[in-house]
Amino acid sequence: MILSITMNPSIDKVYLVDNFSIGNVFRTKDYTSTAGGKGLNVARVVKAMNFDITASGLLGGLAARFIKNRLNSLNIRDKFVNIMGETRTCINITDNMNNKTTEILESGPEVKGNEIDKFLKIYRSLVDETDIITSSGSLPKGLSNDFYRELIKIANSKNKKFILDTSDKYLKEAIKEKPYMVKPNQEELTNLFNINCNSIESCIQPLIEFKKMGIKMPVITLGGQGAVGLNKDNIYHFKAPNVEAINVVGSGDAFVAGCAIGLLKNNYIQAMKLGMACGVANTLFMQTGKVTKKKVNYYKDIIKVEKIYEL
Amino acid sequence: MILSITMNPSIDKVYLVDNFSIGNVFRTKDYTSTAGGKGLNVARVVKAMNFDITASGLLGGLAARFIKNRLNSLNIRDKFVNIMGETRTCINITDNMNNKTTEILESGPEVKGNEIDKFLKIYRSLVDETDIITSSGSLPKGLSNDFYRELIKIANSKNKKFILDTSDKYLKEAIKEKPYMVKPNQEELTNLFNINCNSIESCIQPLIEFKKMGIKMPVITLGGQGAVGLNKDNIYHFKAPNVEAINVVGSGDAFVAGCAIGLLKNNYIQAMKLGMACGVANTLFMQTGKVTKKKVNYYKDIIKVEKIYEL
Repeated sequence: MILSITMNPSIDKVYLVDNFSIGNVFRTKDYTSTAGGKGLNVARVVKAMNFDITASGLLGGLAARFIKNRLNSLNIRDKFVNIMGETRTCINITDNMNNKTTEILESGPEVKGNEIDKFLKIYRSLVDETDIITSSGSLPKGLSNDFYRELIKIANSKNKKFILDTSDKYLKEAIKEKPYMVKPNQEELTNLFNINCNSIESCIQPLIEFKKMGIKMPVITLGGQGAVGLNKDNIYHFKAPNVEAINVVGSGDAFVAGCAIGLLKNNYIQAMKLGMACGVANTLFMQTGKVTKKKVNYYKDIIKVEKIYEL
Repeated sequence: MILSITMNPSIDKVYLVDNFSIGNVFRTKDYTSTAGGKGLNVARVVKAMNFDITASGLLGGLAARFIKNRLNSLNIRDKFVNIMGETRTCINITDNMNNKTTEILESGPEVKGNEIDKFLKIYRSLVDETDIITSSGSLPKGLSNDFYRELIKIANSKNKKFILDTSDKYLKEAIKEKPYMVKPNQEELTNLFNINCNSIESCIQPLIEFKKMGIKMPVITLGGQGAVGLNKDNIYHFKAPNVEAINVVGSGDAFVAGCAIGLLKNNYIQAMKLGMACGVANTLFMQTGKVTKKKVNYYKDIIKVEKIYEL
């Protein structure tokens, strides 16, 4: 079983507004509401691939009902903890006429101490019945920046693999606890090590750094250039197949989902290929966190791997 | 008893975003959610003045729960009809640094035939127990532009006073059914008669037009210049007291609320004064649809009236 954690989910609203400008009143042509948050994208992709998934984290207010309804309709097992605060809404205003998107992110709820205790209790029992844990995104107010350390520590103590997909201060703190896998993109890597990884070769040194820190499966994703990953003493380049992307949002989350499924079978190369195939398949749909098994299997078989370095 | 109808309510969200611009990502400093829609403002003001109020109209989805919770907490009797569609959210992005507001209005739900029948059934029974009916704002999809005619016809057939506060095509159609009171502002009047009413004197002719159509209490509101109204063969100018307005949004709705309360006692001059006092009091609060009895009574006593024309 795979467990996906989203501590700071959201309702993602996309408004289509042509010629959007400041100081005026617009009526939306069309809009969509999605149960958002990176961990929920992970859960959707795992489910689309026909694997069991449990989603947990924190949810509050009317937004909680909306997100729980959506999970329910997708048959994703819901183990979210209810909190007093209102789960945030994130607004995306897309102007297709001028190719501009403008985003407004609510700050989200402030989590209380007893709510954290309640979550950790449920989390511990879920880890017991889980093989792989994925945890994605930012943390809400009320949780300290190193909160992911607590989750990783519990997973490590039970010998469960923990895939961490977060950024900035949260990533910086959490890697101290040695998650099984991290997958920063170039921007997140720059924030972390203050180096510019703009080529495949420049990813080698940071991967070795991650290994020294005790992270078994560090991956650096490079968008269209694919991904570079370390396994034991080898560093590989996984080449992304050429596709005409429709919407790349959520592809990092689909990558996590694919890796989590692949790791159930404990085969590094296959896990990486499945991760990349899920990421690629996700770019072919307008919806975030959407893949089909058929497309994933197709791309998995055409991904090329090259060993580029040996320690 | 007063009945306030809102066919197309909304959740009004105000986001405070400094230096808001196109194409960027913003985290909100602060935001508020209000049970919106002009008829709900009317209901809040009537309640704040300590009069019985019933609110009805159409509500759907999770937004319905939010709005019903708010009405409940204010002790406003809730007779809204549940519909399948989701009640709209209206986004207001306020940039206090540059004094600009940008609005995005969702189109709202599409109402089905059986939902309209259900509403009309409840409306008929509510009109029986009501003295004054107010009806405010636009109509949702699925209702014809002349839907207000139906509501006015039912009220007129039971000799109940109907105050209509709407604009454009809805106003144009509805006045054919002779509501007891209309209260267009200058802009609404221009849209209706294609004339420019920028002075007190220029309001005389359109008021006479309304009388000819069979509307007993036509009022034209002029913002800081007050209001001009017709009663029987007399036209009066009600002068607005000077105040430092904080937020004028909802003042037209507060005006309707005050008039409705005043009409319970069947005294034209007192009703108009109370309407204007409520409108003025509302401008002194950041919140829309908010007044205090104390402020309303203070302003009511200092409003000056002048008869400016006799037919």
